[in-house]
Amino acid sequence: SNEVTEHENYFGLTLLNRRSDKRTDSKWLSKKQSHPTTVYILFSNLSPLVTLSGGIEGFQQPEVKLCRLSHKDVKQCMNQNEEGTLIFLGVELQFHMNPLAACNGRVLQEDEEDGLVAWFALSVDSSSAEEFKQKHEDCYFLHPPVPALLQLSEKEAGVVAQARSVLAWHHRYRFCPTCGSATKIEEGGYKKTCLKEDCPSLQGVHNTSYPRVDPVVIMQVIHPDGNHCLLGRQKRLPPGMFTCLAGFVEPGETIEDAVRREVEEEAGVKVGHVQYVSCQPWPMPSSLMIGCLAVAVSTEIKVDKDEMEDARWFTREQVMEVLIKGNQRSFSLPPSQAIAHQLIKHWIGINANL
Amino acid sequence: SNEVTEHENYFGLTLLNRRSDKRTDSKWLSKKQSHPTTVYILFSNLSPLVTLSGGIEGFQQPEVKLCRLSHKDVKQCMNQNEEGTLIFLGVELQFHMNPLAACNGRVLQEDEEDGLVAWFALSVDSSSAEEFKQKHEDCYFLHPPVPALLQLSEKEAGVVAQARSVLAWHHRYRFCPTCGSATKIEEGGYKKTCLKEDCPSLQGVHNTSYPRVDPVVIMQVIHPDGNHCLLGRQKRLPPGMFTCLAGFVEPGETIEDAVRREVEEEAGVKVGHVQYVSCQPWPMPSSLMIGCLAVAVSTEIKVDKDEMEDARWFTREQVMEVLIKGNQRSFSLPPSQAIAHQLIKHWIGINANL
Ligand SMILES: Nc1ncnc2c1ncn2[C@@H]1O[C@H](COP(=O)(O)O)[C@@H](O)[C@H]1O
Ligand SMILES: Nc1ncnc2c1ncn2[C@@H]1O[C@H](COP(=O)(O)O)[C@@H](O)[C@H]1O
Repeated sequence: SNEVTEHENYFGLTLLNRRSDKRTDSKWLSKKQSHPTTVYILFSNLSPLVTLSGGIEGFQQPEVKLCRLSHKDVKQCMNQNEEGTLIFLGVELQFHMNPLAACNGRVLQEDEEDGLVAWFALSVDSSSAEEFKQKHEDCYFLHPPVPALLQLSEKEAGVVAQARSVLAWHHRYRFCPTCGSATKIEEGGYKKTCLKEDCPSLQGVHNTSYPRVDPVVIMQVIHPDGNHCLLGRQKRLPPGMFTCLAGFVEPGETIEDAVRREVEEEAGVKVGHVQYVSCQPWPMPSSLMIGCLAVAVSTEIKVDKDEMEDARWFTREQVMEVLIKGNQRSFSLPPSQAIAHQLIKHWIGINANL
Repeated sequence: SNEVTEHENYFGLTLLNRRSDKRTDSKWLSKKQSHPTTVYILFSNLSPLVTLSGGIEGFQQPEVKLCRLSHKDVKQCMNQNEEGTLIFLGVELQFHMNPLAACNGRVLQEDEEDGLVAWFALSVDSSSAEEFKQKHEDCYFLHPPVPALLQLSEKEAGVVAQARSVLAWHHRYRFCPTCGSATKIEEGGYKKTCLKEDCPSLQGVHNTSYPRVDPVVIMQVIHPDGNHCLLGRQKRLPPGMFTCLAGFVEPGETIEDAVRREVEEEAGVKVGHVQYVSCQPWPMPSSLMIGCLAVAVSTEIKVDKDEMEDARWFTREQVMEVLIKGNQRSFSLPPSQAIAHQLIKHWIGINANL
């Protein structure tokens, strides 16, 4: 089935090179802000502005795409919109070469074009968002994030993951956590500095100034017999869906110990060997999902009813019935965009070779 | 050499089971706080109180050990010390069985002993710290964190990693970042709640309430020839020391892409395949170091002079001379407690089998 090879790293691929070196180049940033090739993507309340395309020609399924706006489109709104937050996302990976620079192979003059296509994310308040929707009738804000964001193409999803995580940080982290004062945004949106002159956060480098990334472990737990895996369901999941166990890594803890602790806490099962498989950014709001294979050394399940509704051992055949044949009569699994899907698929692949 | 097998997971091992289920059991927590077997470790300005032991009998090297205090020792100071922060760290893994409970195998009565030895970290202000040092002449606060913390035994280092990271979070995150109001500490020190009644941080679950863990990638970069590795030095390193490149994972980024971005930014070298090796909590103040092997696909080095002083390819023989023979005449490497040391050692092991 096609499903099984799709979306190997949803939210992890991107169209852009972040070019973090440009974040401190305010002259370059301000030149690019008003450059005609620059691409703006808009967010309202952490949802991106999108449009449907491709549905008209032929009978294809319409595709959800980011609205790629120009400086002209957003200029007015940027002036009105005091609450607005602007994030520099990077430049397009496909290098649009400046013909002059290409011919001569020399260093560019300061006011010359570098040919780089810059992308920015702009977060607007709800009244600007309303105006925008009225002006661009075919556009709307994708909401709620899950499952709506999962309709984007892989590469656009990566851009949205980056933008949404940084915007969510500005959204919740408005004040200096060290002294409670107001802050200002710097370095293209990647730094936040306290406005109180003698605040201790200004002495030295502190994580209070930088965006948060929350590491989460998510694990495919394998039964000691190698032929069953442990899946659970939290109350907020869609009815009938089971997925891998997961939890936040705590301070002072390794990835491997976080896996062991969470599996024991949530399902009462003891884990021995843990092996990293792959990871996925998950912008709800800014998690890094670290996917592992975990080998159980005990089998009795004791569900923590505060966190989970149910947890069970499933056979390989049961899982393949859903994942490969798409038969969701007895239970369902997360969609291919979720790392849980990829971990389960990975296990099936391993098992098949036994 | 002994050096090479030591400290495989410094800061990652621990004496304790975190027992996060007890964090919301305020009755249990308060009973344990005044229980005679409970262990307190003290911190002043994020440095733990330690003592030297073992040096007197015989001619051994004295060992740096945590001062394990009892409720009696800290009671007075807890009352005086309004600024003090108390963190529940967990219970000892070696279960001290209650003889009654063991005999009968029945569920404990509410006021019965469960036999668990609880540990707490207590952070005290500088005047209480002064008083303490005067009362306990053989004790002192380990400072500065690097390299002083690295003198602790592996298992005590793990406890300090957990305690120091959580305390550092309270230290810098005193105010609600969403609204700037004061906060209160809950759940044994693992949660922080805004005191302003209508603050949006109180609606739903937000990471503003939970400790920060900053994922960092650290990578042993291998030359395409397989026989050289890329090591660099930042200005703040001790003279002559070279180590693995490293950097913070950004929002919306995978571990593998963070490795590629950082190596290109810092040294101008392009990386292809990336493989996870192991990780290490690094409590300065609350990083999770994610160690990888990275295979370079280009070899020319362009050092980013803002971040690095130097970066070079080293041969396997050069690295073995320092790591195995301990000859530090031309350069030195990080101590065995650092994951960089372990990654370099791991590469030498792989290479040896070629
Ligand atoms: N969470 C963070 N904490 C501290 N520094 C950060 C963080 N995220 C990004 N940075 C950047 O990393 C630099 C410090 O990196 P390092 O030299 O590895 O300590 C700072 O100057 C910041 O530019
Ligand atoms: N950084 C964090 N962000 C949100 N929740 C956290 C965080 N760290 C720990 N938690 C805990 O994890 C629970 C939510 O986990 P989950 O159900 O996986 O979203 C919360 O109720 C908190 O107890």
